[in-house]
Amino acid sequence: MIEKRKPIKVEQALKRVFDYARYGSIEYVSIEDSYGRYLGEDLVATHDVPFFNRSPYDGYAIRACDTVNASRDHPIEFKVIGEIGAGSVFDGVVGEHEAVRIMTGAQIPDGADCVIMLELVTEIGQHMIEIKRKVKQGENISFIGEDTKKGTVLAPKGTYVNPGDVALLATFGYKQVPVSSKPKIGIIATGSELLDVDQPLEPGKIRNSNTYMIMAQVKRAGGEPIYFGQFEDDFQTCFEQVKNTLEQVDFLITTGGVSVGDYDYLPEIYEKLGADVLFNKIAMRPGSVTTVAVKDEKLLFGLSGNPSACYVGCELFVKPIIRKFLHNRNPVLKRAQAVLGQDFPKANPFDRFVRSYLNFDGSQLYVYPVGLDKSNIVSSLAGANVLLVLPGGTRGFKKGMKVDVLLLEDQEGAPLDTFLAGFKNLNRGDSDEVI
Amino acid sequence: MIEKRKPIKVEQALKRVFDYARYGSIEYVSIEDSYGRYLGEDLVATHDVPFFNRSPYDGYAIRACDTVNASRDHPIEFKVIGEIGAGSVFDGVVGEHEAVRIMTGAQIPDGADCVIMLELVTEIGQHMIEIKRKVKQGENISFIGEDTKKGTVLAPKGTYVNPGDVALLATFGYKQVPVSSKPKIGIIATGSELLDVDQPLEPGKIRNSNTYMIMAQVKRAGGEPIYFGQFEDDFQTCFEQVKNTLEQVDFLITTGGVSVGDYDYLPEIYEKLGADVLFNKIAMRPGSVTTVAVKDEKLLFGLSGNPSACYVGCELFVKPIIRKFLHNRNPVLKRAQAVLGQDFPKANPFDRFVRSYLNFDGSQLYVYPVGLDKSNIVSSLAGANVLLVLPGGTRGFKKGMKVDVLLLEDQEGAPLDTFLAGFKNLNRGDSDEVI
Repeated sequence: MIEKRKPIKVEQALKRVFDYARYGSIEYVSIEDSYGRYLGEDLVATHDVPFFNRSPYDGYAIRACDTVNASRDHPIEFKVIGEIGAGSVFDGVVGEHEAVRIMTGAQIPDGADCVIMLELVTEIGQHMIEIKRKVKQGENISFIGEDTKKGTVLAPKGTYVNPGDVALLATFGYKQVPVSSKPKIGIIATGSELLDVDQPLEPGKIRNSNTYMIMAQVKRAGGEPIYFGQFEDDFQTCFEQVKNTLEQVDFLITTGGVSVGDYDYLPEIYEKLGADVLFNKIAMRPGSVTTVAVKDEKLLFGLSGNPSACYVGCELFVKPIIRKFLHNRNPVLKRAQAVLGQDFPKANPFDRFVRSYLNFDGSQLYVYPVGLDKSNIVSSLAGANVLLVLPGGTRGFKKGMKVDVLLLEDQEGAPLDTFLAGFKNLNRGDSDEVI
Repeated sequence: MIEKRKPIKVEQALKRVFDYARYGSIEYVSIEDSYGRYLGEDLVATHDVPFFNRSPYDGYAIRACDTVNASRDHPIEFKVIGEIGAGSVFDGVVGEHEAVRIMTGAQIPDGADCVIMLELVTEIGQHMIEIKRKVKQGENISFIGEDTKKGTVLAPKGTYVNPGDVALLATFGYKQVPVSSKPKIGIIATGSELLDVDQPLEPGKIRNSNTYMIMAQVKRAGGEPIYFGQFEDDFQTCFEQVKNTLEQVDFLITTGGVSVGDYDYLPEIYEKLGADVLFNKIAMRPGSVTTVAVKDEKLLFGLSGNPSACYVGCELFVKPIIRKFLHNRNPVLKRAQAVLGQDFPKANPFDRFVRSYLNFDGSQLYVYPVGLDKSNIVSSLAGANVLLVLPGGTRGFKKGMKVDVLLLEDQEGAPLDTFLAGFKNLNRGDSDEVI
């Protein structure tokens, strides 16, 4: 007897998973190690920028009132009473018809209220310059707080730290940076056909590629993967393994073992654990057997053993829950629209997520499925930078149609609501009900 | 006297830099650590995929000739003589009107030449099934090498290792992965106005943000940044510092000190080193003072001290040389076309690289400059995901115009030739000569 499972839609599945989101705590890393982490607190301007009135150019700091009558025909002379390199401060006060040579970024000296650029000045002898135009009060001065006011939130908690953010952290004195702790994601592989990567091939067996692939996907998403090895053949041992692993991690991923085949232990393990199965069939291809259960508020992701189903399940359900853990506001894959670059004639009642390559041609995005989208073919995973979304229904898809794609390498992401709305707008061939 | 420098075009500058590219050697990392590195050798299929004839479905392995007369009205009975789980092998031979239950992925038993899917079979008693249709020879068998032939190059040397590549590495037994060694990039900061990140602010000074920003940019590009501290005030000490650092690294970056100001030591240091200055002025904004010199075949990048000029110089010149070192075939920033989202009225004789945000609206790309593009404003760096390219000339730019953008967070990159050709196609307002 084959158990009959009722499929739910992708967006319903994701909503259920998000009900069990967990959140990271704050830990501190040195600024050198902050790139690629996620902020654990808002990044706040700890002082005004500029912190002092400064010169944006090389030039001379003077009093504007002394230039009122200056013109090409009527140059006015100034005595140069000193100079200020960047980082140093002028001790005196600039008086009538006096000038101080000032470098870019240096502090405006007392008494001066404007700067004239070097190019507009004529040196007419040692310590004497001539000015041939009027300069306004405040001209060429970057004033305190003009760029950024103290207390401004420059990047919210949960922001992915890019090189520009690192510059901000340095500017505002964050030697130690508060970042979100990474979720610990346990991984257990199932499948008696699996050899480890360093074992020689034998008849009937394949090497375990899913585990290493998922470890990389978890890292890309911002989590910390921990591999707990493969299932043993014995049910009780497998049960103990899941139970013990779950206590040591924030989320658990298993690969394989979630179908209804004779060797698929996971459904029975969920039952014995007393875990609540949120769903065990999703109206999507590949990965319809993707199962998610909850035990003591912890999510157990039961991904398919097929490489591309496993990949897609990880991107659609695990990645968002990792980004959410990191307090990121845009935890879900970002969606874009593209033009389908080739026919995709075969209809499917389930939504399809086809590993594809997104290309720019002029200002238009084009998307091409990479390789055959059989779920057992690993080689087509490598060239994919998007998942092409083909809504379930009774139609095929023609070259030139507008289609949705989900970006895989993007760091920006999208909010859950936007992502869910995207599915509402999908032109599914069937009614709102999944068959 | 202000030294007069002759500016060269961005693409000429890049071409000169590429003449001094250096290349990494091979090192081995465990597959768990291979994500995000660059392949040091071609990734080759070390065996056929599949490695044996296998079943893509759950079903029964039979002989096609036994089904020739099967039909709805004339079901044919088969005796089930065994079953094969994934990973195990059937010892016997499938004979006339015999069937072996087979799981997805398992090896086709001897004697059988096709598989009938589970759903098309009726169990009619213990160890007996009934088949009501003809099955062709080879039907539902994934044959040896059907997916990938042994010896196929699946990813060339220099490829950025993404999660799909990791799956391939595991499949083909790469427990240790040959990757390119990372270039060691030395960084020295200059500027007497600079405080370190943990120092309290004082009048006239700012914290050193460029160093930490560049360290993150170097990491993003795939290199290994090493910070050698700030210049001392004394020329001879600075000279020794550059000389000694250069011996320990593959490339050296300095920030600041390349203008023609009174405190800018770099030009003099290049001279004393006997370094060959490739250029010291580029027809671009920001970063026109960007200087590159060569000493003993090693590149010295003299980036501007202004945060955004420093950022742009690093992306345009340092990043490509890092990717080249990693044997990557697409070492330069990838270019796309977008619609300008707002007016940019001010013309400039130099090409501008404006930190901007690229957004998708429908299938159309739109680009918006982030913040004011003053080179001393650090806060606008954080929101940028592209550099907007505005060709030099006498015109401004209007909302709605098609413009080029260079992608900052993209891992794909572009070949040098494509990048250079992009500049040829730029509609520069001036003649081919830079003023």
